[in-house]
Amino acid sequence: MDIVVGIDIGGTKTKIGLVTKEGECLEKTFFRTREYPDIDDFVDKIYSVIKELLEKNPNEFEVLGVGIGAPNASSKNGTIEHASNLIWKGTVPILQKLKSRISVPMKIMNDASAAALGEMLFGNAKGMSDFIVVTLGTGFGAGIVANGNLIDGYDGFAGELGHVDMTLGDGRLTGLGVRGGLEAYVSATGLKRTILYMMSKYMDESRFRSIAYCDLHGEDITQAAEEGDPIAIKAFDYTADILGRALANFTAFSQPEAFFLLGGLMGSGKWITEPLKKYFNDYLLEVYKGKVKLMYSGMKGKTAAICGAAALIWEDHL
Amino acid sequence: MDIVVGIDIGGTKTKIGLVTKEGECLEKTFFRTREYPDIDDFVDKIYSVIKELLEKNPNEFEVLGVGIGAPNASSKNGTIEHASNLIWKGTVPILQKLKSRISVPMKIMNDASAAALGEMLFGNAKGMSDFIVVTLGTGFGAGIVANGNLIDGYDGFAGELGHVDMTLGDGRLTGLGVRGGLEAYVSATGLKRTILYMMSKYMDESRFRSIAYCDLHGEDITQAAEEGDPIAIKAFDYTADILGRALANFTAFSQPEAFFLLGGLMGSGKWITEPLKKYFNDYLLEVYKGKVKLMYSGMKGKTAAICGAAALIWEDHL
Repeated sequence: MDIVVGIDIGGTKTKIGLVTKEGECLEKTFFRTREYPDIDDFVDKIYSVIKELLEKNPNEFEVLGVGIGAPNASSKNGTIEHASNLIWKGTVPILQKLKSRISVPMKIMNDASAAALGEMLFGNAKGMSDFIVVTLGTGFGAGIVANGNLIDGYDGFAGELGHVDMTLGDGRLTGLGVRGGLEAYVSATGLKRTILYMMSKYMDESRFRSIAYCDLHGEDITQAAEEGDPIAIKAFDYTADILGRALANFTAFSQPEAFFLLGGLMGSGKWITEPLKKYFNDYLLEVYKGKVKLMYSGMKGKTAAICGAAALIWEDHL
Repeated sequence: MDIVVGIDIGGTKTKIGLVTKEGECLEKTFFRTREYPDIDDFVDKIYSVIKELLEKNPNEFEVLGVGIGAPNASSKNGTIEHASNLIWKGTVPILQKLKSRISVPMKIMNDASAAALGEMLFGNAKGMSDFIVVTLGTGFGAGIVANGNLIDGYDGFAGELGHVDMTLGDGRLTGLGVRGGLEAYVSATGLKRTILYMMSKYMDESRFRSIAYCDLHGEDITQAAEEGDPIAIKAFDYTADILGRALANFTAFSQPEAFFLLGGLMGSGKWITEPLKKYFNDYLLEVYKGKVKLMYSGMKGKTAAICGAAALIWEDHL
């Protein structure tokens, strides 16, 4: 049976799985990325985990290749560069290191781009030629498909939409020092910052007045909104407003047929999606109105990133 | 000799020319668009002008097709829709109307996208797969190439970057009612608005204090800057700052190898380009620094739009 190894390298966990051509993840496991501060140890660990997964079924699998999704990965250079959420600093030639240990076809890509490819091959973007996957987690990532192809950019770093300046430089700083950058507003972290902002701006009572910033969690903000906390409701509305503007801006760039929204922030459900629909439609240019869908991912939550990474290899075989 | 008819439909003039496969414009003429408020009369006029151009050399030319560039044109629908600078309102099925009179292959595209294709076939973008052409005239247009292909968008309306909101909705209105939209700042019109803004903000002496808004012209602003007028110099600096932010934002989207800047505003030369280089480099994310060129168009000014339109057909023959 043909199989692809999918690897999702995240700041906290590195997840590895075996993915079928239908996009099913048969075997999967993970380890903690931070336990391998030396990149060579990390690569050795990946190698041994893949070996283990395969040996569970020694005769059955024909490995077509290894696909990797990682933050700040350059598909063209095979590197991870200046990833603020990873432990390895500077430029890491990860593909070259893995290739010296494993001799099957191998590709790496920005994790949000891999998610977009996964959505196209296995998820809800089947048959679409123009769409954008937006990942709203600790940061803000984007995988952009136009004319049926992923936009990589000249050097493999397209889609860094979390660092688009929304405010003419008069706003919050992102982790990479962009003043007014989108991810400082629209992400799980951005939502927490907005809770503080709303408490500074309004005097409404709120459960968050007795909770420190570092103890704030997305689920609690959702819960508070459910219970009518005015600060939580205002924070979601503000976040949705800025996300709506951002998606309207991105529409003017590549006019996607749909945006697929995933990641932790989407766990807040209607509190983010309902105001988002309203604002997005308000801000869209007339020529785009009624033509751009806001959709959920069709990928199963826990294996979505692994399957997206595997799609890098599967797209050459389907 | 094989030839393509290139047509550039503008708010003021409609230009028509015969373009060789080297991108040379052999014969050209124009007429005033506004003299044909009835779209059928306009199409008849185009037909008769093409006939005239060809009859000058009746035996020599084999017409491969007709390429058209126009504002707010949809390549997919063959229409011009809601073009604020044209006299025809709503949706104009211009390709269908022309096809009933002329029986050669015919294509239409947004004028900035046609310019990008022209740059790729005949100009300074030869051999590039990822670049963006920015037209800075009455408005702000963009033609975006990624993976060697023009980005059309789902419905043919990609690249409307003049209506990207730069200010979280707290700024100038564009002609299409977008609050904080880029073209309200960065365009020939935007520069004039900025002259007023700078005179409202600062009390410097300036020749423009005795000139009404409707008598302001781009060349005079350049001339004033040459002579040290502080309001003119501040206006160019402000315009370049916002353009620098915008180009840094667009880099995060598709990571082009180069931006090609054209149109009336670029006639101001160093007054716009020098501060632009500085701001653009300041605002670029680390991962992009030193990798994105700011370039001039390689197309000859007066025939650039005609040759860009002709490139729509030539790209199928080269």
